[in-house]
Amino acid sequence: MRVLIIGGGGFVGHKLAERLIEQKTLRGETITHLALADIGAPSALDADFAVTAHALDIADREAVDAILSEDWDVIYHLAAVVSAQAEADFVAGMRTNFFGTFNILEACRMRVHTPVLVYASSVASFSTDVPQPIRDWTATTPQTSYGTQKAVGELLLNDYSRRGFIDGRGVRLPTVVVRPGKPNAAASSFCSSIIREPLQGEPAMCPVSVDQEIWLASPRVTVGNLVKVAEIDGKALGGIRNFALPGMTITVGAMLDALKAVGGENVVGLVDHEIDPTIERIVQGWSSRLVTDTADSLGLDRDDDFERIVRDFMATDMRPAIS
Amino acid sequence: MRVLIIGGGGFVGHKLAERLIEQKTLRGETITHLALADIGAPSALDADFAVTAHALDIADREAVDAILSEDWDVIYHLAAVVSAQAEADFVAGMRTNFFGTFNILEACRMRVHTPVLVYASSVASFSTDVPQPIRDWTATTPQTSYGTQKAVGELLLNDYSRRGFIDGRGVRLPTVVVRPGKPNAAASSFCSSIIREPLQGEPAMCPVSVDQEIWLASPRVTVGNLVKVAEIDGKALGGIRNFALPGMTITVGAMLDALKAVGGENVVGLVDHEIDPTIERIVQGWSSRLVTDTADSLGLDRDDDFERIVRDFMATDMRPAIS
Repeated sequence: MRVLIIGGGGFVGHKLAERLIEQKTLRGETITHLALADIGAPSALDADFAVTAHALDIADREAVDAILSEDWDVIYHLAAVVSAQAEADFVAGMRTNFFGTFNILEACRMRVHTPVLVYASSVASFSTDVPQPIRDWTATTPQTSYGTQKAVGELLLNDYSRRGFIDGRGVRLPTVVVRPGKPNAAASSFCSSIIREPLQGEPAMCPVSVDQEIWLASPRVTVGNLVKVAEIDGKALGGIRNFALPGMTITVGAMLDALKAVGGENVVGLVDHEIDPTIERIVQGWSSRLVTDTADSLGLDRDDDFERIVRDFMATDMRPAIS
Repeated sequence: MRVLIIGGGGFVGHKLAERLIEQKTLRGETITHLALADIGAPSALDADFAVTAHALDIADREAVDAILSEDWDVIYHLAAVVSAQAEADFVAGMRTNFFGTFNILEACRMRVHTPVLVYASSVASFSTDVPQPIRDWTATTPQTSYGTQKAVGELLLNDYSRRGFIDGRGVRLPTVVVRPGKPNAAASSFCSSIIREPLQGEPAMCPVSVDQEIWLASPRVTVGNLVKVAEIDGKALGGIRNFALPGMTITVGAMLDALKAVGGENVVGLVDHEIDPTIERIVQGWSSRLVTDTADSLGLDRDDDFERIVRDFMATDMRPAIS
């Protein structure tokens, strides 16, 4: 079992790699090689099998062809220019999210070996301009360039699967909370910041109303679902290879209540509130209520306890206090 | 008013050009230049204004940039590699339908002038794998490469419109019946053949069951709707620039009944029946029942009389008998 994680230097990709190293198998087979590729080569990881790290710009067709000159059994495609960045820089988003995904699919098409391809799409491919809640058969009518580019990737993944070039599964990830590290250019970055920074003793800014609903999943459940998605029988999906992963719907206010319950009054007091109209417009355009029939029928997992998510972050991802 | 019809050598494009030459105006302005572009330069047409003809391969980015170096007020993008051809030749379909559409959008993005862009998508972007009838907010889950490529174009059109690069409108055309001329590589080609060939004294083959439902529109109504779609206020469409044009749902058997009513027993006797599994599979994957709320609210027209469609064909498009 040879596994390639494109976007393996990112937070979710790194956690997925750790999970695969821990479980040693995927799809019932022993992993013999795990490759992590990202725009900068990811850091090395210790494992019972070979783990290699590669610098890869997926917008570079030749570089994609080169890494796909090896027969991978499972490829995770998690690489993306994130939402706010793709909105601010149209060309950068098209280059990585549109052509990058196309390049990966085309490189797979040129191979005799047919890999399982797990593609991370996003709830951002939906909008609030259509009847809610979002179902698996609701139109993707994205109101951001990032969501558009992700939805295009979904369509291509489906057709490349139908034609047998890949065995694809496109999953629309909820906003993953709590991310460790620093804020990024994702419009959803604040969802983690308002939990992470206060717990680490730093101030945070909440740019949307506390009544704003968020559709989210923990890193733990997301990684577990990404493993399961690679292991299902692709043919069981029929003609529709794209579906939403389970999430939980929670208001920003309820997230802060959970932070207070776990960390106390002083911690939640580090969160200031100032509406950022750009961020708010993007976030308001995302659907926060989805019915995930396909994912549920496949037995995928769903978070239901935000306090647990906060405690998990403290246990595994929180930066040690400088003392 | 400068109008460019890409795909102007095709049947619908040609009829649209004739209509524009007849009405002399579009969007309330006098037409000063009508350009017809197609893979081979379309034949010239007489008009009260300049009509030019251009050979254009939309997969050739430089050629697209060249024709778009003039500021067009309205661009119709009707050019496509049709369904059965895109299914038989994946690369040809991706080249014209995917990259060709992208090239047109990119050429528009590079201009200061923002054109109205009317994009012909297709009911083939839907499938029967989702709850019927199809609504304007139903997911495009195409089960052909043609439908996939059309649906990708829709997503891009929407984002390029949202960002102000174009003022786009994507319309999902029903199967247009009766087409004049000869059968083509579209899986829907038989829908016209079974009417046209018998009326012209030639045999025809029906490759699907007479119970098969078809979602269709006449050339007359289709062209009228394409004119109206260019004239609506794009902003009134909000964040969703793609919608289905009205069609009528009719079985192949009812189409043949109308042929018999108009042409008589001998004419309909020229139709033989033999199921073609490839064609049948594609056609069965198309939705034949759509609710067209957006189009209806815009006042677009709908056929309701197939005998009239047959008579219109005889009056305007039937090949003169060789005698």
